[in-house]
Amino acid sequence: MDGQDVTGLMQQIGARARAAAAELAFAEPEAKRQALLAAADAVLVRQEEILAANAEDLAFGTAKGLSPAMMDRLKLDAGRIGGVVEGLRAVAAQKDPVGEVIAEWDRPSGLHIRRVRTPLGVVGVIYESRPNVTADAGALCLKSGNAVILRGGSESFHTSTAIHACLQDGLRSAGLPEDAIQLVPTRDRAAVAEMLRMVEFIDVIVPRGGKGLVGLVQAEARVPVFAHLEGICHVYADGDADLEKARRVVLNAKTRRTGICGAAECLLIDRAFLAKHGPVLIEDLLKAGVEVRAEGELAQVPGTVPAQPDDFGREFLDMIIAATVVDGVDGAIAHIRRYGSSHTESILTENDATAGRFFQRLDSAILMRNASTQFADGGEFGMGAEIGIATGKMHARGPVGAEQLTSFKYLVEGDGTIRP
Amino acid sequence: MDGQDVTGLMQQIGARARAAAAELAFAEPEAKRQALLAAADAVLVRQEEILAANAEDLAFGTAKGLSPAMMDRLKLDAGRIGGVVEGLRAVAAQKDPVGEVIAEWDRPSGLHIRRVRTPLGVVGVIYESRPNVTADAGALCLKSGNAVILRGGSESFHTSTAIHACLQDGLRSAGLPEDAIQLVPTRDRAAVAEMLRMVEFIDVIVPRGGKGLVGLVQAEARVPVFAHLEGICHVYADGDADLEKARRVVLNAKTRRTGICGAAECLLIDRAFLAKHGPVLIEDLLKAGVEVRAEGELAQVPGTVPAQPDDFGREFLDMIIAATVVDGVDGAIAHIRRYGSSHTESILTENDATAGRFFQRLDSAILMRNASTQFADGGEFGMGAEIGIATGKMHARGPVGAEQLTSFKYLVEGDGTIRP
Repeated sequence: MDGQDVTGLMQQIGARARAAAAELAFAEPEAKRQALLAAADAVLVRQEEILAANAEDLAFGTAKGLSPAMMDRLKLDAGRIGGVVEGLRAVAAQKDPVGEVIAEWDRPSGLHIRRVRTPLGVVGVIYESRPNVTADAGALCLKSGNAVILRGGSESFHTSTAIHACLQDGLRSAGLPEDAIQLVPTRDRAAVAEMLRMVEFIDVIVPRGGKGLVGLVQAEARVPVFAHLEGICHVYADGDADLEKARRVVLNAKTRRTGICGAAECLLIDRAFLAKHGPVLIEDLLKAGVEVRAEGELAQVPGTVPAQPDDFGREFLDMIIAATVVDGVDGAIAHIRRYGSSHTESILTENDATAGRFFQRLDSAILMRNASTQFADGGEFGMGAEIGIATGKMHARGPVGAEQLTSFKYLVEGDGTIRP
Repeated sequence: MDGQDVTGLMQQIGARARAAAAELAFAEPEAKRQALLAAADAVLVRQEEILAANAEDLAFGTAKGLSPAMMDRLKLDAGRIGGVVEGLRAVAAQKDPVGEVIAEWDRPSGLHIRRVRTPLGVVGVIYESRPNVTADAGALCLKSGNAVILRGGSESFHTSTAIHACLQDGLRSAGLPEDAIQLVPTRDRAAVAEMLRMVEFIDVIVPRGGKGLVGLVQAEARVPVFAHLEGICHVYADGDADLEKARRVVLNAKTRRTGICGAAECLLIDRAFLAKHGPVLIEDLLKAGVEVRAEGELAQVPGTVPAQPDDFGREFLDMIIAATVVDGVDGAIAHIRRYGSSHTESILTENDATAGRFFQRLDSAILMRNASTQFADGGEFGMGAEIGIATGKMHARGPVGAEQLTSFKYLVEGDGTIRP
């Protein structure tokens, strides 16, 4: 498909999405719920078809020489298909955000004002190899009354197409427009460039994938973007930390899963903590098999590796952590301001004033106390599902669920009320 | 000042604003309140100085041949200075939005999650001749913990500088950084182009002015923009309208003030209304001196002018209104979707179902029932003041007050809580 064709195709997809969005904005909550439940049923019924499509993608991936990690992300099995079905049902069970009265008040003029939740319009989702994003993102956008244009990775093309067919089954059975959830039907990369510029048809772009993809989208998009480029999450062990809580949290924050954006990448140890407890946190990490890239006094702990300057502010996504000593909470705040990515940071302390200072003076999307950074997740926050995590300050921040895919409007009622 | 100098100057201003924003984010509410009250006092004390600066601007405006309307917007007198003082005091008296807990909940994991309001960071305000915007915008940004870079119109340069000096008096007396409110100290237009691209230093741009300015900003800005390009507000008189309420509201919506964005620009009359009551709404408008550009049957009402196609979707900002007949609420909805600017529309009806349909199927920032569109204003909404009205769907919509100049962060507390 040449460039000209892709432009025309994407314009058509955009116009259809815009038309579907106008209808979806006032779709009955029950219709959206039924569409999601029917889509879940369709995934179960068409399971063999989806697995066959996935086998085709896997063969393509093998031929292309994809890394084992990418092949694993791409691969579906009965268990993962069960996860897709559960995800669709969980979003179906969520409260419908559209029409919710966020605030209401009366004015001396006699006006009654309500602020009511509305969909954003059309969401564009650009993702890489994980085919389950097709279902998750499609479901969240439908729940929030938005039309969505999905652009999956070329590696998962057949699997995404098969899952998308199930979502369309769901829409049809509930009498909702099929254009509510569209999948870009070409692997041509020019489609991505088109989406980033379609300001008249797309209200927000959500990129899901590695730093390469997100960086490209953030640099090139004329459409607003909800995203985080990196999750450089810090854990700070304060002098007033409880030792056992600190040991537990540090280990979990680094090692539970190293490949997610909420994994800790840097440990900051208060000089007072070190004086009291010694390098026990470092030793725990080493014992767990973590490579500790340490600076200053910590570099003298046997088994550590000397940190290079660029190990701070670096997202390892691996069994590696940077570590340094800081002078109290203000030292930690200064370090995080310099090296953080505004994603998630955690303070370990029993001191309320110190925790308050950390909470007040840092402005990451998520700040934690005595808790593992691995909780940075829409599901763990109780949002049911997330379309991504945003670190920008405009509109959406932190885990982006159905509610944050909405805007609002004001409904104002008078009784022949005029302004003096 | 040549282009190179302006770039350097603006980078310095931006860096200083960013530094001030980091401090302002946790400034005490009482310090911000005191700064605003002290600024109000300074405006009173330095009244003569401000009027002298204004006289200089007026002389410049006369020499430049500014229109009477622009000269009027530029001119200050004791009354208008009193308005500036009152505005500052009103914002001082508002609730401080920063740190407000928007939502909080517990999770089965044991985590307690709070969603807390934070400032956006740095706001850029680009405005035309009205010098009072200096005080209004400066005050709202300070209240919401944002640093602000003000770029006033060249016509009001001296007046804005004099008012800005009072705001700095206020900041100094409260021990807050003077860089919290900066005024671009040059009339060079290159400064505007710089601001639109300063994504590393400015989080949002608010343009205040005519369609030319706003359109330029929307087209050129790489920084997010809160704005409305036009206020093409519609009033729809439904067949089930109460005649007296309808007459009162239509007249007020058009004629109370014609130059504001909430003034009605188009009257839609339901065929059923016309059959019941005749062209009374048109006759009222004509009697009030409004030029009615009418279409179809309405063009037969004596005194009307035939509407041209481009009279629909047009912002007159004058004693002119477009008028046409529509078939019921669905006809009105279709017309507004085609010609509206997503600002404010009002339905006149006693029928709840019809009003509900209008409220549900349109997605303007403000929808009204039995009330004048002239209420589209932050003050009338009870927000104390507004920095502008936004018609975009991202982040801020409708009147933008202190609260909408904020973002949020999540504060998460555990007790050594780890993720399984």
